[in-house]
Amino acid sequence: MIRFDSDYLEGCLPEILAALQESNLEQTPGYGEDAHCDNARSLIRRACGLENADVHFLVGGTQANATIISSILRPYQGVLCAESGHINIHETGAVEHTGHKVLALPSADGKISARQIADAIQAHREDFSREHMVQPGMVYISFPTEKGTIYSLRELQAISGTCHKAGIPLFVDGARLGYGLCSPACDLTLPQLAALADVFYIGGTKQGALLGEAVVFNPDASAVAPTLSRDFRYNIKQNGGMLAKGRLLGIQFETLFRDGLYLRAASHAIRQARRVRDAFAAKGYAFLADSPTNQQFPILPDTLIERLRRDFGFEAWQKMDAEHTAVRFVTSWATTDAAVDALIAAL
Amino acid sequence: MIRFDSDYLEGCLPEILAALQESNLEQTPGYGEDAHCDNARSLIRRACGLENADVHFLVGGTQANATIISSILRPYQGVLCAESGHINIHETGAVEHTGHKVLALPSADGKISARQIADAIQAHREDFSREHMVQPGMVYISFPTEKGTIYSLRELQAISGTCHKAGIPLFVDGARLGYGLCSPACDLTLPQLAALADVFYIGGTKQGALLGEAVVFNPDASAVAPTLSRDFRYNIKQNGGMLAKGRLLGIQFETLFRDGLYLRAASHAIRQARRVRDAFAAKGYAFLADSPTNQQFPILPDTLIERLRRDFGFEAWQKMDAEHTAVRFVTSWATTDAAVDALIAAL
Amino acid sequence: MIRFDSDYLEGCLPEILAALQESNLEQTPGYGEDAHCDNARSLIRRACGLENADVHFLVGGTQANATIISSILRPYQGVLCAESGHINIHETGAVEHTGHKVLALPSADGKISARQIADAIQAHREDFSREHMVQPGMVYISFPTEKGTIYSLRELQAISGTCHKAGIPLFVDGARLGYGLCSPACDLTLPQLAALADVFYIGGTKQGALLGEAVVFNPDASAVAPTLSRDFRYNIKQNGGMLAKGRLLGIQFETLFRDGLYLRAASHAIRQARRVRDAFAAKGYAFLADSPTNQQFPILPDTLIERLRRDFGFEAWQKMDAEHTAVRFVTSWATTDAAVDALIAAL
Amino acid sequence: MIRFDSDYLEGCLPEILAALQESNLEQTPGYGEDAHCDNARSLIRRACGLENADVHFLVGGTQANATIISSILRPYQGVLCAESGHINIHETGAVEHTGHKVLALPSADGKISARQIADAIQAHREDFSREHMVQPGMVYISFPTEKGTIYSLRELQAISGTCHKAGIPLFVDGARLGYGLCSPACDLTLPQLAALADVFYIGGTKQGALLGEAVVFNPDASAVAPTLSRDFRYNIKQNGGMLAKGRLLGIQFETLFRDGLYLRAASHAIRQARRVRDAFAAKGYAFLADSPTNQQFPILPDTLIERLRRDFGFEAWQKMDAEHTAVRFVTSWATTDAAVDALIAAL
Repeated sequence: MIRFDSDYLEGCLPEILAALQESNLEQTPGYGEDAHCDNARSLIRRACGLENADVHFLVGGTQANATIISSILRPYQGVLCAESGHINIHETGAVEHTGHKVLALPSADGKISARQIADAIQAHREDFSREHMVQPGMVYISFPTEKGTIYSLRELQAISGTCHKAGIPLFVDGARLGYGLCSPACDLTLPQLAALADVFYIGGTKQGALLGEAVVFNPDASAVAPTLSRDFRYNIKQNGGMLAKGRLLGIQFETLFRDGLYLRAASHAIRQARRVRDAFAAKGYAFLADSPTNQQFPILPDTLIERLRRDFGFEAWQKMDAEHTAVRFVTSWATTDAAVDALIAAL
Repeated sequence: MIRFDSDYLEGCLPEILAALQESNLEQTPGYGEDAHCDNARSLIRRACGLENADVHFLVGGTQANATIISSILRPYQGVLCAESGHINIHETGAVEHTGHKVLALPSADGKISARQIADAIQAHREDFSREHMVQPGMVYISFPTEKGTIYSLRELQAISGTCHKAGIPLFVDGARLGYGLCSPACDLTLPQLAALADVFYIGGTKQGALLGEAVVFNPDASAVAPTLSRDFRYNIKQNGGMLAKGRLLGIQFETLFRDGLYLRAASHAIRQARRVRDAFAAKGYAFLADSPTNQQFPILPDTLIERLRRDFGFEAWQKMDAEHTAVRFVTSWATTDAAVDALIAAL
Repeated sequence: MIRFDSDYLEGCLPEILAALQESNLEQTPGYGEDAHCDNARSLIRRACGLENADVHFLVGGTQANATIISSILRPYQGVLCAESGHINIHETGAVEHTGHKVLALPSADGKISARQIADAIQAHREDFSREHMVQPGMVYISFPTEKGTIYSLRELQAISGTCHKAGIPLFVDGARLGYGLCSPACDLTLPQLAALADVFYIGGTKQGALLGEAVVFNPDASAVAPTLSRDFRYNIKQNGGMLAKGRLLGIQFETLFRDGLYLRAASHAIRQARRVRDAFAAKGYAFLADSPTNQQFPILPDTLIERLRRDFGFEAWQKMDAEHTAVRFVTSWATTDAAVDALIAAL
Repeated sequence: MIRFDSDYLEGCLPEILAALQESNLEQTPGYGEDAHCDNARSLIRRACGLENADVHFLVGGTQANATIISSILRPYQGVLCAESGHINIHETGAVEHTGHKVLALPSADGKISARQIADAIQAHREDFSREHMVQPGMVYISFPTEKGTIYSLRELQAISGTCHKAGIPLFVDGARLGYGLCSPACDLTLPQLAALADVFYIGGTKQGALLGEAVVFNPDASAVAPTLSRDFRYNIKQNGGMLAKGRLLGIQFETLFRDGLYLRAASHAIRQARRVRDAFAAKGYAFLADSPTNQQFPILPDTLIERLRRDFGFEAWQKMDAEHTAVRFVTSWATTDAAVDALIAAL
């Protein structure tokens, strides 16, 4: 069985295991205050071009989302996002669990527009019964989205501008950030993204780490009070995200950002994803969304799906009609040429 | 600098790193549904003598405590614990963050008694304005406690009996469980403890794992509805504790429980802790509590503390008078003979 | 200015003021444990045909909804409702504030069907990643709905049956219950409704009381544990709904249910509403929904709206096209013949 | 039976019923935006000497406390108060229900000092593991306290100064504010108190209203951001405190503050309380606390308590020894000379 189910099928990049091995008997302070975490924070600040950024390490995406969102919103505020946003669909209501409504906007491709955001904010402010409704207090977007699509620089600038004009922060979920930045279709850089968001995170779990997400607060952003970032460690602890052995996260991000491993590993996945995409396209299959990243969503006849399942692992994503289903194939740092060759051959 | 600050100064037991290395390229399902997690669950059930137990893996202690407690209590219920309990003092209000009051009972040595619990429950039930007060809905104890002390079998039986008579569950925080069970002063076994608690966890982070706690629900306990345990995975996800690469926890607990490594490593720490204790006792120093586990709290003159600080790391715990402070020395699986020798020599 | 903005424009039914006057200097226990509350509870049990029902008095609808819903759901559960449901739109996220997601289902007329509910529950149970999603834990419907429509007995039986087959409770928001039950279009009685719901409330605020809603737990319902109802007073207090002078609510519901005043006053409103509806219909105007209750939503030319506004108060409800808007006219116990005459004349 | 159980035994001041009667058929906008509420806000601003104050009306004390506290604190912050504070003891954990820990300080007489507050804040800020603990984010005091005692102007100035120096707001629970301000032992005025607090409320329920508390935000206070007060109506709605017929609160506070009725009615209660106190003191009984307000706590032999219970209602407050209990006698605007005469005669 060759699996394309997800980008978290294997352990981690070998470089990370080596770094864990090498540092294993060092004695370090706990809770993220060790030298490895400090170094990782420096490397990330440099990669983002934000020398004053506050960088924090969290364990996973759901935790990062709920902790960040609840640290920023006032009790009566909610977060605007695409209806397909991970926080709206696949986190067991973790945001609502912290007391906040997710304000979902319609989206066909996983993206929302500056116009949708501006309209939602204005509609709320103009409503005479606004106090009876949840106030939009921040915007959440995923980069890439849950459907593999990415925002252009211009789209992101428009969104950021809209948010800041309205005085509300922009939060970018980057659980698969590297796969977006590496895509040939991407016209923006990490520093550009970092400058446009108030807070975002750089995903580790789905990009070759054992676990971990690096949260970056942009200190120059206008819409998040500096105290929120300064006291964020209280929020991490309160939400169960502060590891006693915080170095486990520091060592991994240190390894990922020391010499470009993060984007290098992601580029490998993108190359394999294009091979997968091209193979399905060559057979004439349509796609649920036009994804330039490591998740591909071909729409296949159910008969083909049944046949492929004998040798390959992948997820059924969405029933399209009586005989067709959109499925998801995911590549990662660990996807081998041989695995994709076998898939191509099977097609 | 030789550090006795905590039991999470180093990475992890070498056997764990080896297991991670060996399994690294295996492709497995996510979210704790892989074969390693299954195997670890079986091993833990066997070690606990609870063949029907539900076993779940969580990332850390604060997260485990808040997730378990909030999964069981009704909104108007609180949790009884010692005023020195970790949930009351050192978790940034994570339990209150889920909406529940911590009902702290006075305690000199970190323990609470069956009598205190019974009195608190009865006082509530008899109070004519009880609906204006938080209802005791479960009991939390630490084994060992935050002061290194442990409950005897008889004490634990009395507490368990009191809880079950009152129809409320008993939860045991076992962040350092192995250090308690291994202590020569301990007169109970893991199966005995497992049979008396409704839910407890087996600490990994402080006992040689990179991270992780194994939560065990006792299916035969009378005071927790079976649905709570059955649906507990929803709670884990909602609280940000479900790792995509859940196998990271499974592999570790598999390693710890395959051939007795868990208790073997803890026994090493206990031996070193006794050497530390004996060295301080031989010099005539008193202790904050009579701890038979891996945390020792000698009360030292501030002048001695200052001198020891040049070569050793340890925590100041509690100011006793103008010239004396209780400090904490902690040993672990990684504490070397040489480190303790050096401390003894320095005394 | 003659106002049709809402059914809470005036103070209260004169009978209620008289009862408050008469009882003013009586000394009674607080917190709903006085003789007036006891009597009101008996009268309501009798009116519902539920001799064992638990009846509680709360201050308002938003408070009643959030308190009831959060008292029943487990943390990872959400509440199914129509997307137009009051809890989803107009309560400032009060349900999410208690930690629970509102699971909105599409609805054109404010109602949801047994089929929609069954499908949503089954889709969740069959989803392989269900633990990553909010579990449907109860169903909320409004009777009448926010658009003035009502469920038939058969529809309500189907919904109740679906809920109970799935083991989840049915909650009916009856903020305007009387206006529904009185409507000539209604084919069910209060006892019939009471027997089908697990919990519901009888609105006072919008039906002639100064404030107050009477919550009724059906003890024979299968899907709510008896302890939830028994301990509900804790929930009320915790949510700020327990009045020190609880008699204020008891005296009002005693008055409303002593001799049929509740439905008598509602019937007056329905008669006036039909006159309003007939007047608009006679002019050929369409309606947003076919409401047989005290809220009417004619779709009017904006020019007419502008003219009517000089003399009448009413709410703009929904923009239909460039030149038409659906508006809301509401009648109540206090709506005079003269007021409706004037409106008819103006048309 | 003559009752001294509480100050909410009767309905309301006759002037309030008259005002409700008179205004009953007026048509007004809902949700506190009517002319009566506006007028009441103006009268209160004038009485407080705060022409820019934001005034809001809430239904009861528990609701006011939880709504105010949760609107101000960040998620990881808690509220400092006396261990006997109402929020800590008698509100079913309403504050914790909103996610915040109550940080209780020891208190013999219901009061806390500026020194205690300063020490608690400083201890937190100096603790090296402060991020693992709840951060003090505001201070709650009751005026009068739950034991009937009051702060002097100098004490209040010291507390306010300490809070503002530390940058955290001071909140005064004034559920019985008038009984404190009227007491001959009180050396401060309402404007003086209003200038020292960041937010406080003027109790109605226990001072002759049917229900209601008037919350006053001081716009010139340094420690609460103006947005919190500006958006407070969202918080009220979300917490179920926004009455559709908001005028019910406006009319009552308009009546209480139009011509001094609020303090006049309280003064009557104080006079009766002094007669009660003097009667017990003359018999040589000690008191639990030296209360100059409308609650008196004599310590009586259990035999006397038993005898008095035949004719009088009052609460047992605290068991003192095998034969003595502190009890509570409460007077109000409604306490008659005859009632107190009867009590004196019975002694």
